[in-house]
Formats: sequence, C-alpha cells, structure tokens
Amino acid sequence: MIKKVCGNTLYFDGCNTVELAKKYGTPLYVVSETDILEKCQEFRDCFLNKYPNTRVAYASKAFLPLAMARLMDREGMCLDCVSGGEIYTAKMAGFPAERIEFNGNNKSPKEIEEAVAFGVGRIIIDSETELPIIEEICKEKGKIMNVLYRVTPGIAADTHDHMVTGKKDSKFGIDLEPETIFPAIEAAINSQYVNFLGFHFHVGSGIYQNEPYLDSLEIVLDLVKAVKEKYNYDIKELNVGGGFAITFVKNEQRPPYKYFLDPIMERIEKFSADLGIERPSVVIEPGKGIVGEAGITLYTIGSIKEIKNVRKYVAVDGGMTDNIRTELYGAVYEGVVANKMDQPADDLVTICGRCCESGDIVIYDIPIATPERGDIFCVYSTGGYNYSMSSNYNKVVDAPVVLVKEGRDELIVKRQTYDELIQGEIIPDSLK
Amino acid sequence: MIKKVCGNTLYFDGCNTVELAKKYGTPLYVVSETDILEKCQEFRDCFLNKYPNTRVAYASKAFLPLAMARLMDREGMCLDCVSGGEIYTAKMAGFPAERIEFNGNNKSPKEIEEAVAFGVGRIIIDSETELPIIEEICKEKGKIMNVLYRVTPGIAADTHDHMVTGKKDSKFGIDLEPETIFPAIEAAINSQYVNFLGFHFHVGSGIYQNEPYLDSLEIVLDLVKAVKEKYNYDIKELNVGGGFAITFVKNEQRPPYKYFLDPIMERIEKFSADLGIERPSVVIEPGKGIVGEAGITLYTIGSIKEIKNVRKYVAVDGGMTDNIRTELYGAVYEGVVANKMDQPADDLVTICGRCCESGDIVIYDIPIATPERGDIFCVYSTGGYNYSMSSNYNKVVDAPVVLVKEGRDELIVKRQTYDELIQGEIIPDSLK
Repeated sequence: MIKKVCGNTLYFDGCNTVELAKKYGTPLYVVSETDILEKCQEFRDCFLNKYPNTRVAYASKAFLPLAMARLMDREGMCLDCVSGGEIYTAKMAGFPAERIEFNGNNKSPKEIEEAVAFGVGRIIIDSETELPIIEEICKEKGKIMNVLYRVTPGIAADTHDHMVTGKKDSKFGIDLEPETIFPAIEAAINSQYVNFLGFHFHVGSGIYQNEPYLDSLEIVLDLVKAVKEKYNYDIKELNVGGGFAITFVKNEQRPPYKYFLDPIMERIEKFSADLGIERPSVVIEPGKGIVGEAGITLYTIGSIKEIKNVRKYVAVDGGMTDNIRTELYGAVYEGVVANKMDQPADDLVTICGRCCESGDIVIYDIPIATPERGDIFCVYSTGGYNYSMSSNYNKVVDAPVVLVKEGRDELIVKRQTYDELIQGEIIPDSLK
Repeated sequence: MIKKVCGNTLYFDGCNTVELAKKYGTPLYVVSETDILEKCQEFRDCFLNKYPNTRVAYASKAFLPLAMARLMDREGMCLDCVSGGEIYTAKMAGFPAERIEFNGNNKSPKEIEEAVAFGVGRIIIDSETELPIIEEICKEKGKIMNVLYRVTPGIAADTHDHMVTGKKDSKFGIDLEPETIFPAIEAAINSQYVNFLGFHFHVGSGIYQNEPYLDSLEIVLDLVKAVKEKYNYDIKELNVGGGFAITFVKNEQRPPYKYFLDPIMERIEKFSADLGIERPSVVIEPGKGIVGEAGITLYTIGSIKEIKNVRKYVAVDGGMTDNIRTELYGAVYEGVVANKMDQPADDLVTICGRCCESGDIVIYDIPIATPERGDIFCVYSTGGYNYSMSSNYNKVVDAPVVLVKEGRDELIVKRQTYDELIQGEIIPDSLK
C-alpha cells in the first residue's frame, strides 16, 4: 500500500508527509512513482502483455511535467498529446516522437507543422477540414503522416456533463452521418500525404460501466465493416480512448481495468475474424487511470471558522488555484489531517481554499480529526488534472511537485516565484 | 463609444481588431484604457467627488498586470489585494503601499509579514484568529497596522452560488453572533499594535439590485451603534465591498453605479448624524466594475463542425484556458465576427474552445455572421477574471494582453513561450 500510518503520521510511498510539507512548504503536490508503476503494470498485465499489437497512450493532459514524460517513456507507454505545448514538453524530455499521438478538436496549423516536423507517430484528425491542412504541411515537408479519424458514436455516458464527449452533440470528432464520414474516409484513403490507419473514439471520463465503451465500439465496428465493403480497405488501428474511472473516495472503488478491456478485446477479435481482416491494433488512452490515485496534495491549515449551527470552515493555504475540480465538476475528494492519523475523524468540517471566491472549496462536509492552525491536511487522488489545471488566480504562485518512491523524495516542479509570476508583464511607455 | 464598426471591421478604442490579431497573434486579450478611464471617472463623479472622505479600492483579483497597477495609481484609486503575489505586483509597479488594503480569508503569516514590511494601508481581518498573528508581526517590526474586521451580515444576494459571499454560511468574514464579534472588537480596540478602524462586508458579485447592499449595511450599522454604546468607540471606516453588476450582454444593461452608491451614502450620513458620530470613511471595491467591460478577447476561428439537426460548433484557438467563466459559472458572453461586421448575424452557432474537454465552451447558441476558418472572433466584456483566472491546461500558453487607447496599442503582457511553460520543471537524477 502506498499510504501508511506510523504513529500519528501519514506516510506516502515511504515518505513522512509532515516532513515533506516542512521540507518543501505547502501547498505541495506529492506524486508516488510506485503507484504510477503499479498502474502501468496493471495495464501491461491486463492489456499490453495479454493482447499483442496493443498500445497504451498516456493522456498527457492529466499531468505532464518533464519527469512524467520520462517516466512514461521508461515504462514503454505512448503519449496522447493535445497541444504544441505538450508535444514540446515530450520533446524536451527526450520522449520518442514516433510514440506520440496528436489529438485535439482544433489543432492550429502551426501546431500541426511542429508535430509533423518532430515526426509524431500519429495525428488523430478531429474534423473533415483538418485533413487538407495536414496534407499541405506534409507535402511541403515531404513527409507522410499516419492518421486516424476521431468519430462521434453518439453514445451518452453516465458522468458529469462536462466530461461526456462521445454523444452526438459534441465538439469532438466527426459525425457518423454517411454524407460526412464517407467522403472524409475516401479522401484519407486516396491521399498521397497520409497513411489512413483507422478510427478513434472517446466516451468521456470517470466512467464506471463498460456499456458505453461496448455500445460505441459496436457503432465504430459497423463503420470498419462499411469501409471494408465500400473501399475494400482494411482498418489497421482502433483507439478506444480512456476515461476509465479511478477511486476518489473509499465507497466508490473503481473496477479493475480488465473489466473494461477484456470485453472490448473479445469483441474486436471476434469481429475481425468474422470480417476476415487482421485484428487491428488497439490503443487506449488512460490519464487519471495512470496518475490520478498516485497524487496527493498537502496543505497547511490556517483560519478555522465555526459558524454555530451552520458549518465549520477550515481554510487551507491553497484551493481552487491548485484544485479547481471541486468547483468545476463538483468532484468529491477524501482527506485527512496527516499529523493526527491516530485521532478519530469525528469533526465534520468543510475544507475551503484561500482564494477570494465563495466557490473556492476543496471538500464539502468531511469528518476529520479536530483541526488546528498549523496542521497538515492531505487530500487524496489529486494526481490527475490538478497540477495541469492549476492557475495563478489571485496571483497565487503555482505549487511545487515532489516525486516520491519508497522513502526517496525528488523535486520535479519548483514552486513558482513572485518574479516568475510577473515575468511576462510589461509597463508600457505611456505608463512609465 | 469604445466599439465602432468601419466597413466590415470592428474597431476597439480606435484600433482595428483584425490588425491587432494579425500583429500580436491570437488568442489575444485587448483592454481599452479609455473605457477604464471612463469607469474611473464615473466612480469619481458619483462617489469620490460627490462625497468627501471616500475611497475606491480596485479589486486587483479582477485583473492586475503591472500596467493595471500603474493605471490605478495614476487614476488615484486604492488597491484591494488578496495575496502576497498581488501586493508584490503592486510594489513592482511602484504603487504606494499606504493605498493598499489587504483582504483574504486565509492570509499566511508570511504574507502578513510582507504586507506589514511593505507598509500597506490596511489589513482587513477575516477571522478572530488573524488578529494575534498581525499583532505579533507588528510587535516584532515595531509597527502599528490599520485594521478593519470583515463581517458576514447574513444576507444572501441573488447571483451565482459561487459568488454569494455575504450569507451566514460563508468562508468569509466574522460571524455576527455576539459571543464571536464583541470579543474580537474588544481585542482590536485594546490592542497596542493595531489601529481599529471599522468594518468591511461584501455582498457577492454580479449584483443588479441595491437591496442586498442596503440590508447588509443596516446590519453593520447596528454593529457600529453597538460598538459606540458598548465601548464608546467611534467607527471611522466602512468598506461596503464591490460586486456591482456590469454589462455582459446587451439585454442585461447594468445600472449606473450611483444607483447603488447614493442610497448607501444617504443611509450612512443619516445614521451618523443620528448617532452623533463623524460620518465614517466609506470605501468600495469594484473590480469588474472598472475593468470588465474594458476587455475583449480576439480569437481565430479554426475547425467548424455542423452536426445536422443538432448544433454547429465553431472552434476558436483559445477557450477555458483564457476564459473559464462560461464553464465555471455558466457566464454568458456576447461576441461577433470582427471581420464580418457588415454581414447579418443569422448563423446560430456554439463557440467552443480548443481544449480536450467537452465543457470547454466560450458561448452557447449565439447568432453570428456565417463563420469561416481564419475569421477573427471577438468576445466582449472579458476584462475581469479572464486573464486573472487563466491556466496552462493542456499546456496551452498564456495569451498576451494589449492595452489600447484611441488607436494606440501597447503590449502589457507578453505571450508565454513553450520554454516558460516548462521552466519550473526538473528531471530528477533518478530519471536522467
């Protein structure tokens, strides 16, 4: 287990969290390498090693400092990147270009140029107007790019509205109306600048059931069949996206990944045999699935405000600047007083942030050990989308990130300084 | 008028927006100095010049690059700062410390130290446990700090939940229960390290009605009276906060600021005369009220996706990274195709962002001139809380800000570079 209690203190991947807070200051993101490696191992065991010709493309947007790109490289993962900035980070981390897949509903021509120049493995085309841009750039650079089409199967998954992406009314992917999709496919098949591999779909995120995956898959397999029949063209790759639920709170244990992957693979294998084609490569794109549970956030408790018969507010020294997910999605987290692990969690409080905004709440109504100013509060499962969505709202500096493994701690993102906060700001001549 | 149309093109404070987009790239924040000056003039006319002994403290969290701090200084405004980072920005802009008021529900001891060392004009104390920290720091530094108490009048304003701050169930301010507030007041009156000036309250933001202000004021005036009667102590300052609505869309015109301020001042003057005290200084804290309408965001239109009988998605090259308010609060914006101002706005579209997230929408269901890839899309009233809440989600670089005035344009925030994006990230020894 990554989390352990020793005396009154929470240990995380062998490190004393209270000492980490003292050494690096708070707020502090702590990421367990051991937990990441365990998740990668789970994906290897239940997917990569079990089924040949499969890939795991880590969804970089969940968390991609340079160190994470290195780690994913070492673990043999591919990278799902969605911007020039993510591709640049991968590049600076020495990540092999050919193992990068470039996603995104509105890639700029400049980003596509950068991706083609760097030699990324695949571009996942999101709209029929993207192909001509890729073709022009490839033509100019004398390159041929592997491409897939992201399609919208029209399945609505049961999750937060902002995380449903596979339904028909979506900014992502190409609509499956025949007059839209087939001309697009034909253009890709016939292009001399791209190598058309297949289809990508993504159901959403935070999904507990495998039905939306299987329902969507069925629709995409129909398309694979239609392509075979219409153009005698064999689809060589299917990317079924990510979105597999992770465990945020104890009473909502995530299913094991094989729960999603076995039925998907079984269906694709049977389908391919029936159609008489080689089973396409299958790619998945977990983000939180790899890094979500590996992260915690450490805060120092400051102001405590008990409003009689109403609520007890416990303020920490971070909040929506380092974790906007509670306010944005109503995400629910668990947390503990890291230096009072031996005390009963019987004080019902609301953990609020330090920003000048009422919505700046980290956890509503959670029982914890009676808190005092100076205590260290730890929030679990903050590895995905917390650092990556952080902001400098209220001109609060970005929190640092420490990578821990079996008692060793290494800084992988420095705390931002006040000077860095204003480094891009200029006083113009007219105001000097 | 700040916005003008010339031929097919939108001009903003005398500048051709299409040329601005070409010169600086997109996404681009553009801020009109003329509009800011007009708003400052409105506050001078209806408040500062009309009523003696009043101050306007601009709510820095709305937008505070160095240039904005300079501008507020030149206009004679005070600054409402809520973090060490905002105070540091003010300092680096040469803003006079004594005109800064330091707010915040959970100021860190380090920030209070910085504020005391810099010599800020006032600290607005947010909880009864904050006073001892200020006293200790003042004692050590041999200083006396002006303080007010922020109180929670218990009035719920009619606005978005995340923006209601004056209600009893709030992380902000001190509860008015006698056993909480009076000991706090007594401690401040008797302290040799602070000069207790009075009370601060803040109703919320985006408020169209003056009732919540007047109802809250009544409760705070009761407290002023109680302090007079109980301690024979005259309150010298009242800070009634900000939150005055601004105009985001045409059919929701904001009231003039005097609509809020005249009844407030009238009530305070009558109250003071009745109680036989000198009318306290009155301070307001507008943020969006000064800068909200002064800002626009320019985007380049990219992918356009028409899903038959469902929706037409028009993607721009920014989104939740530069404007998270639509996703976070359901904020509603107006926008136009800046290079097609002579064409009828009869194409109903949804403007979406470029981030890998379904919630990344800028404007839902807005009629605009038929858009094409490469068009410049302009969103109005993005001056407040857009730049300041921006993030690097998806590793998208921060957009630059240009200050315009009567045809002159000056860069006040540079576009972030890829290198700056990763400057704090370190590859640790174990991953080299």
